[in-house]
Amino acid sequence: MKTLIVHAHPEPRSLNGSLKDLAVSTLESAGHEVRVSDLYAMGWKAVVDATDYGPAASSPLKVAHDSGRAFEAGTLTPDVLAEQEKLLWADTIVFQFPLWWYTMPAILKGWVDRVFTYRFAYGVGEHSDTKYGERYGEGTLAGKRALLSVTVGGPEAHYGARGINGPIDDLLFPIQHGILYYPGVDVLPPFVVHGADRLSEEDYATAAKAYEQRLLTLESTEPIAFRRQNFGDYELPSLRLRDGLEPAGRTGFGLHVRG
Amino acid sequence: MKTLIVHAHPEPRSLNGSLKDLAVSTLESAGHEVRVSDLYAMGWKAVVDATDYGPAASSPLKVAHDSGRAFEAGTLTPDVLAEQEKLLWADTIVFQFPLWWYTMPAILKGWVDRVFTYRFAYGVGEHSDTKYGERYGEGTLAGKRALLSVTVGGPEAHYGARGINGPIDDLLFPIQHGILYYPGVDVLPPFVVHGADRLSEEDYATAAKAYEQRLLTLESTEPIAFRRQNFGDYELPSLRLRDGLEPAGRTGFGLHVRG
Repeated sequence: MKTLIVHAHPEPRSLNGSLKDLAVSTLESAGHEVRVSDLYAMGWKAVVDATDYGPAASSPLKVAHDSGRAFEAGTLTPDVLAEQEKLLWADTIVFQFPLWWYTMPAILKGWVDRVFTYRFAYGVGEHSDTKYGERYGEGTLAGKRALLSVTVGGPEAHYGARGINGPIDDLLFPIQHGILYYPGVDVLPPFVVHGADRLSEEDYATAAKAYEQRLLTLESTEPIAFRRQNFGDYELPSLRLRDGLEPAGRTGFGLHVRG
Repeated sequence: MKTLIVHAHPEPRSLNGSLKDLAVSTLESAGHEVRVSDLYAMGWKAVVDATDYGPAASSPLKVAHDSGRAFEAGTLTPDVLAEQEKLLWADTIVFQFPLWWYTMPAILKGWVDRVFTYRFAYGVGEHSDTKYGERYGEGTLAGKRALLSVTVGGPEAHYGARGINGPIDDLLFPIQHGILYYPGVDVLPPFVVHGADRLSEEDYATAAKAYEQRLLTLESTEPIAFRRQNFGDYELPSLRLRDGLEPAGRTGFGLHVRG
């Protein structure tokens, strides 16, 4: 297994730093190859702007168009090219981050905004009245798997089916489905540590043991059964889910998961 | 009305730039006071790190603790202090941004991560077994209103109740509920422009007219009826929504909206 760990926390001696280190040692001890993109340590540029496309940038700037043209011409900046190369190298991608305001920290969002360019992660395949791209289950990163390893401040109940923050699976849906499944990545159920700011040594030991177990079963864990776009579940061109495919009463994001 | 517009697009001559300019001119023409935080023009620092807390930063860095201590001591960086001051000045906040990968661009997430500090936007009020803070309907920004003005690439059907991307209200829930309602802001239904990359002049004229209408009725528009945390709808300490409050069959994020 070739694993890329994308890590987004400013403090190496944090819970997130420890979980990242644990992932590296656990996977390497099991004989796997591991590469790490430690975004803070790399000084990752978080913000998309015209400098990403050099003198060839359009004026006015068109982010999708310019990023696709630079991708195809091989003129993306070296930092972005290196991350795309790591993604193509990996068969498994682990994202380690704290949930800040119910989504990823800005530095990680900026990794997505800059690395997931047009023609690489979106705008792939035929777009016409009868087809709307190779996405949601197909695309450049098809065949790879990903795991979100996330720390959250509140207790588990706040993220339950009726919890005030909303269900954790729904909070992560825009990332797991919208960012990862979109370019073809199969997404495993997330690994979530709750009460991250109040973890005792014993709590950490329990979490670490559970995480090791998840890491050592990455290849055999069943991905979330998101529905593929181009295999009959959706009407065209609306990309509306056909009626009657879901269990009675299911609504919202859950519609896009089979079974 | 005192309106703060937080704007997040790298190109002034873009659809987002035009909508921001339209908001300024429409509101000022109607006699309102307007201030703009144009994050790209300001060179906004998107990434939380130890430099945000100066020599007083903890080692190891503790983001929540350090941001709260700096807030209370008045030692946050001038850029963050200025944004907090604008938020306290405003009675209405408009966010103008493109939906990139189903959420806000990194620069705007970084504005939230850095400006919404502990003790200002979270960690406010008593936290005990019988109370879990003043949040979700109470907090520092209670009494203010916000509007998301969002441009999206895909057509409206893709964001419908059964659309492949998920319902737009659910995609925006982590922002509208988790970021804005959390510190007390009442959130108005979003203004969304679809097919943003393919807008004709006529399409733009239609969108602009609709947006003007929304801007001129900001004070009279009914906010989204999110449930307040501390007024009986949630059990303690689980903050689980009491059974039977919702219409039959409602699940997911929609549970946290009344009626």
